[in-house]
Order: sequence, then structure tokens, then C-alpha cells
Amino acid sequence: MNRPAVTPDVDPALKAMFARDPVLVDVLPAIDVVPGMESNIILTSGPPLPWAEYTGGQRSAIVGGALHEGLAANEAEAIAKLDTGEILVRGCHDYSCIGSLAGVTTASMPVLVVENLATGRRAFCTLFEGAGSARLNYGSYNDEVERNLKYLSTVIAPALSELIRSAPEPIRLVPLMQRALHMGDELHSRNTAASLLFLREVMTQLVSMDAARAKSLTDYFMAGDYFFLRLSMAASKLLSDHMSGTPGSGIVTAMAFSCKEFGIRVAAFGDRWFRGPLPTVETSGLFEGFTTADIQVMGGESPITETCGLGAFAQANAFPLQRYQGGTAADMVERNLQMYEIVVAEHPWFKIPFFDYRGTPVGIDVNRVAETRIAPLMDVGIAGKNGGQIGAGCFRAPLEPFVEAARELARGGG
Amino acid sequence: MNRPAVTPDVDPALKAMFARDPVLVDVLPAIDVVPGMESNIILTSGPPLPWAEYTGGQRSAIVGGALHEGLAANEAEAIAKLDTGEILVRGCHDYSCIGSLAGVTTASMPVLVVENLATGRRAFCTLFEGAGSARLNYGSYNDEVERNLKYLSTVIAPALSELIRSAPEPIRLVPLMQRALHMGDELHSRNTAASLLFLREVMTQLVSMDAARAKSLTDYFMAGDYFFLRLSMAASKLLSDHMSGTPGSGIVTAMAFSCKEFGIRVAAFGDRWFRGPLPTVETSGLFEGFTTADIQVMGGESPITETCGLGAFAQANAFPLQRYQGGTAADMVERNLQMYEIVVAEHPWFKIPFFDYRGTPVGIDVNRVAETRIAPLMDVGIAGKNGGQIGAGCFRAPLEPFVEAARELARGGG
Repeated sequence: MNRPAVTPDVDPALKAMFARDPVLVDVLPAIDVVPGMESNIILTSGPPLPWAEYTGGQRSAIVGGALHEGLAANEAEAIAKLDTGEILVRGCHDYSCIGSLAGVTTASMPVLVVENLATGRRAFCTLFEGAGSARLNYGSYNDEVERNLKYLSTVIAPALSELIRSAPEPIRLVPLMQRALHMGDELHSRNTAASLLFLREVMTQLVSMDAARAKSLTDYFMAGDYFFLRLSMAASKLLSDHMSGTPGSGIVTAMAFSCKEFGIRVAAFGDRWFRGPLPTVETSGLFEGFTTADIQVMGGESPITETCGLGAFAQANAFPLQRYQGGTAADMVERNLQMYEIVVAEHPWFKIPFFDYRGTPVGIDVNRVAETRIAPLMDVGIAGKNGGQIGAGCFRAPLEPFVEAARELARGGG
Repeated sequence: MNRPAVTPDVDPALKAMFARDPVLVDVLPAIDVVPGMESNIILTSGPPLPWAEYTGGQRSAIVGGALHEGLAANEAEAIAKLDTGEILVRGCHDYSCIGSLAGVTTASMPVLVVENLATGRRAFCTLFEGAGSARLNYGSYNDEVERNLKYLSTVIAPALSELIRSAPEPIRLVPLMQRALHMGDELHSRNTAASLLFLREVMTQLVSMDAARAKSLTDYFMAGDYFFLRLSMAASKLLSDHMSGTPGSGIVTAMAFSCKEFGIRVAAFGDRWFRGPLPTVETSGLFEGFTTADIQVMGGESPITETCGLGAFAQANAFPLQRYQGGTAADMVERNLQMYEIVVAEHPWFKIPFFDYRGTPVGIDVNRVAETRIAPLMDVGIAGKNGGQIGAGCFRAPLEPFVEAARELARGGG
């Protein structure tokens, strides 16, 4: 059914990616580590839009970010300052950051710092906000959200930083990801095993920490099964960025969306976005009491994991996801196999035991997408009209940006 | 392909099993908790044999157990005392214990105490000896093995006991097992996720323990991915024992083997063993440098997990096992499906996401085995001729004991 993928060493963009080794080096306030970050900048998900075009939950999250940062005393003042440009809105990707859902990242927020030690290149991602349904990244901002954000920056981040820095060796993320893929995770919508494997990795340091700090961290790690998602995203961003700027290469280096648009970056075209309409819902599993009419798109850059052969590209490692995001095991197998049609390689690190250890499909090629008219799939969390998470699903990217990029490449662009 | 299984509530033996809830209550020396245990008794795996009939690794392990217990000063003295009956050899199953491989359990050895709180019934299993290749349960006994056994009883067991007793609520095993089954474990040859989930369960207590004790426990938990296997076995033994003595029921309540024989217990016949030849190797994955000629059978009672719908009966939850024990993912699916042919129910607790959340096949019926001539499969660790683990595999039980039990049932026995 599926043509054999080209060996990874044939493609120079992928070759660049496979030479990297993302490690977690620290957790620090964005302003201290993110190059170009300023105190009046608010980063958000997706191909950047003028401020006025952000609507719904993404707009609320941006305003919430401004209030959290103390850039305005109230919502009206925040909006006024955003209108005049006193507060600036920028895209996460342009700051080596990667946004979950609305993706709002402000100067004081702690970010996970993932680095490729050999090149010194870094990628950053904010921390998982916990299992509560009111979270800034799902478009909510209120006293509870604010208290939680403060708790993350004043208690969790310093403790986590201490934990990471006390590790005898840098915490390499790929070995954890490899193991997690054989324990039911696809490292996008399911990070249950990876979060536990991370805990295992830091256990020795954790038990020798001050007991109160250790207890706070333990409670945080156990508040949900999504701690590792931000690491999976940051690692994927770092790996993908190493492909960026490969001359002539049609390999996709980012897929992301705002509340308005979906966009991709392509290796040959560096930081340029090719834009198109929002993804469509292929399948969804909504929490009790919600229907598809309640779905609100408020941005998301977590499909960077799909860019790296994870998420929907590794669904056959995560059959339990069918309950969470809809569909059957057979559908998941079929979707996963379909993704081999649009890539140029099978992953040398990430394997699928159900496919007898075949590597996950990796290296989405805009040319193959254009030829086959098969657009990439993405496992995503789903936000509701009133904010908060209401479920999860599998989304299909629009074809347009891939077709446009392929056309430009054919014309010798890039 | 597979006939629909009868609903669990139809079968009284299974009904008794599904009403139970195994919890981990402590870790204590066998002599203090195992009913009937005496200081000169050595328990071992399988339908009991006269001492003289134990050979190879199982015999070595029994002698090693006697030396470890201080019942003799040297091997010759141990053998002499075993010959005269001054040291007694008994079957684990008759003492509510369950043996891993050779299964040697002596009076001073710490055992995991698993209880059904409502009935007060208990089952016991020794602790995982760690990742070293020289282990008493794999037939080895030397200074290193002895040091390790001492370390388990003097350091690990007391710390683990403190940890378990400090839990705010009894540690229920079924919820951990349910989750682990959706994270790549089948809870016999793969317990990677369950061991991590157990760690997660006790994290809060672990970080508030004395740091040195916590560090010892942490190192022990991380020495391998098999800590939980002994809990899976003890829970399965406890659940199966609740089926024992159900009049007229042909449900298998135990499958176990010694170095000489395989045997089963059947609900209608209580503690009686139906015996047959050793299982055959269906598929195996041997460590580098070993061949099937190096395989030595030295007993094993871990197939109690298969009796409870785990292990080979849940292989389609553990595709990564194919590397460890041989075969392909398709073989694993086929073998798992085949097991539905010989059971009377689909498990109400243990599900297989790959089969769209169908319950695992549970309740092996001797009548169905006799009719279909399909014998149960078992995922097992494989010992070598010179002791130690040399791999893992999938074994097929002999038909004889099932046929014999079915015949006796038909004659109105039990």
C-alpha cells in the first residue's frame, strides 16, 4: 500500500535534523533567555496577524497575558495599549518559541529551555498549566488562572530549575521520547508515559531536594499527564529549526495556526509562512455535554510534533487515543499509514512496534502533498467557545499552503 | 473469527473473582505472614514433586535457598538435610504464595502482601531481585546473589514497608494494572509502565521519607522495569484463589510448572493439580549469543497472570514485546485473538484498545480447551542451562491436563 520511503541521508534537511540532540538545560523567565524578547512583547501562536485580527479565545488570551504581565491595569487599558502598539503582539515561532493552543508567552513567564549543545541553538516553551479547565492557553483569564500562573513562576519554575541543574548529566530528550513511543504515547495528544519517564529521570535528584519543594514538584508532575508535551514541542521546534534554510528543500519545518489561518514553513524558504484556511476536523472526541458546534479554534503550534514524525504520524503507537479523540484502532492504523505517502523518510529514532518497528513517517514534502493531494493530519486538543478544553481530535491541514510552496519551489524559489 | 464470549456474570467462578479488589498492604518476612510457613520450609514453583525429582536450576535454587536461610553450612549439608526431610520442600501455591521462575521462597525472605480487604484473603510474592543476571529465581546462588538477597531483606523491604504503610489509602492494584495495559504492558513479560505507575502512586510519601532510604528505594525501583511483575502475580494469585472451589466449574485457577511438569488447578477441584508434560516453545527471543539449545526450564508460576486475562491473553496491548520475545505484531494479534476461543468471558476491567476496547479473554475453560484442542499461551522469561536469564518467549501449555480435567468434570467429578 505504501511506497518505501527514501533513506533519511538522501535529504539534506532531514540529515541536518537527525544530527541534533535536544537536551533540557533549564527553566527560566522568557525575558532572561529568549533572544529578542522585550517586556512589552506578547507572543502568540500561528502565522502572525495584525493585533486587530485576533478574535475570540486567542484575543482573550493575549489580553490576559498583558494583564498577567502587569502591562495594563484592566482589560480596556490593555486593549488600548495593544491598539496603539505600546504592547506588541508577535509570533512565537519568530522568537524560537512554540505555543500550546493560544500560545501566549510573556516576558516573566518561565520557559523550558531546550538546547542542542553542539550548535548552541535553543527552543523555548512555556510550562503545562495543570489539569484545571481554566487555563490561559485555552483562552481563559481570571483570578484562578492568574494565581496558577504566579504559582508556576514563583514556586514550580525555580524548583524545576534546581532539579534540572542538579542532574549529573544534561537531560537528553530523545531517549525518553523513544521509550515513550513504545508505551502508548504519540507525544502530541498523549504524553502519559513520557511524563512518567521524565519523573523517573529526575527521581534521584527529587528525593534529595528540600522536602517541601520536592512535594510541590511532585504534585505538579502528578496534576495531569501532559507535563512532557511542552518538552516534546520544544524538542520538535529545535529539531525542525535545524532544517530551516536548506536550499531547494520542500520539507515542512513548521505547521501552526492562529484563530484565523493555518500556515506552514518550508525548509527552502526559512522563516516565511505559506498561509491557508483553518484545518478541518477529521475526527473528534468531545467531553460530555459538548458538540462540534462548541468548538473554537484559538491557535496552536503543537503540530510541530507532526513535523518531526510524532503525533498523528505515530498514531499506531497510541491506540488508547481512540477514546480521547474519536475513531477506531483501524482508522488510526490507516491514517498513520497514509502519512507515509507524503514524507521522504522513515524515522531513524522513532519506531512503531505495531508496524514491526518501521520508523515513523517523517519529513513532510510539499511536493508529495501537492501531488497526492493528501494533507497532513494533526492530533490536537480542542478548545470551546467559552474557553477551556472541551475535547481532542484529529485535524486535517488545508492543501493550499503546500500547493503554493510546491509551485514556488518549481519556479526555482527558495 | 471469534465467537462472542459469554458475559462474566454467567460464570460463578468468574463472578467471585470480579468481586475482589487486591490491595498492597505491606512487605514482611514470609515467616511472619504466610500461614503455615515454618523456618525449615522452602517453597518452590510448580505442582509439588518429591525433593529428589528437582533437577538443574530449580534444585540449585532450592539448595541456595537453604544456604541463604542458614539451614546448612554448605551445599553438601543442605542436600543431606533435604534428603532426610530435615529441610522440607513445598509448593508455593499451597502457601498462598506465587513463585517467579524457580520461585524459591524461604522463611526470612520479604514478601509482598496483597490482600482482598473484604474477605481478608491474602497472596504473597517475593521481591524482584534486580537487573543483575545472577538471581536466585533464575537458579543462581553465589556471594553476589546472597549479598543482594540480604540487601533486599535488610534495606529495601523495611523501606518499602514504611512507604506502603504511610500511604494515605491502601494501594489498589487493579487501577494501576488497568492504566498499564494501555501503556504497552501485558503485565507478565512487560511491566515497564506499571512499575512507573507504582512509583507515581508512592511519590508523595517517597519525597517525604528520610533521604537515604528514599535514595535506596529509588535506585531499586529504577534497577529494572520488573518491580511490578511480582505485584501483578500476587494480585492474580489472590483473584484466582477466590475462584477455587466453585462446584462444577471448569475454569482454570492456576497454571504453573516445575523443572519436570506443567500443571493446572481447576475451580471445581480446589487445590488438586492436573499434571502434564512441560510447555513447548511457541516463539522465543534469546539474548545475544544464546540458542534454543541453551534453554533450561526451572519452573515458573507467573502464568497465573494468564489465568487472569493478562500476559499472552493481553499481547495486543504490548506490541513492543515482539523484539523481546520474538514474532511479529501480526502474530501477536493472532495469538491474542486465538485465546478468546478457550475462555468464557471478556474481562470487565482489563481492555485492549487495539481491539476497540474489547475486554481481554479471561476464564480459561478446560472444556473449551479440550473441544478446540487449543492450549493456552504464556509469556515467560527464559532461563539458561548455566542459570541466569537468557531471553523471553511465548510458551504453549500441554493439552493433557486440560483434557483430563474436562473428562473428570464430565464424569461428575469436582
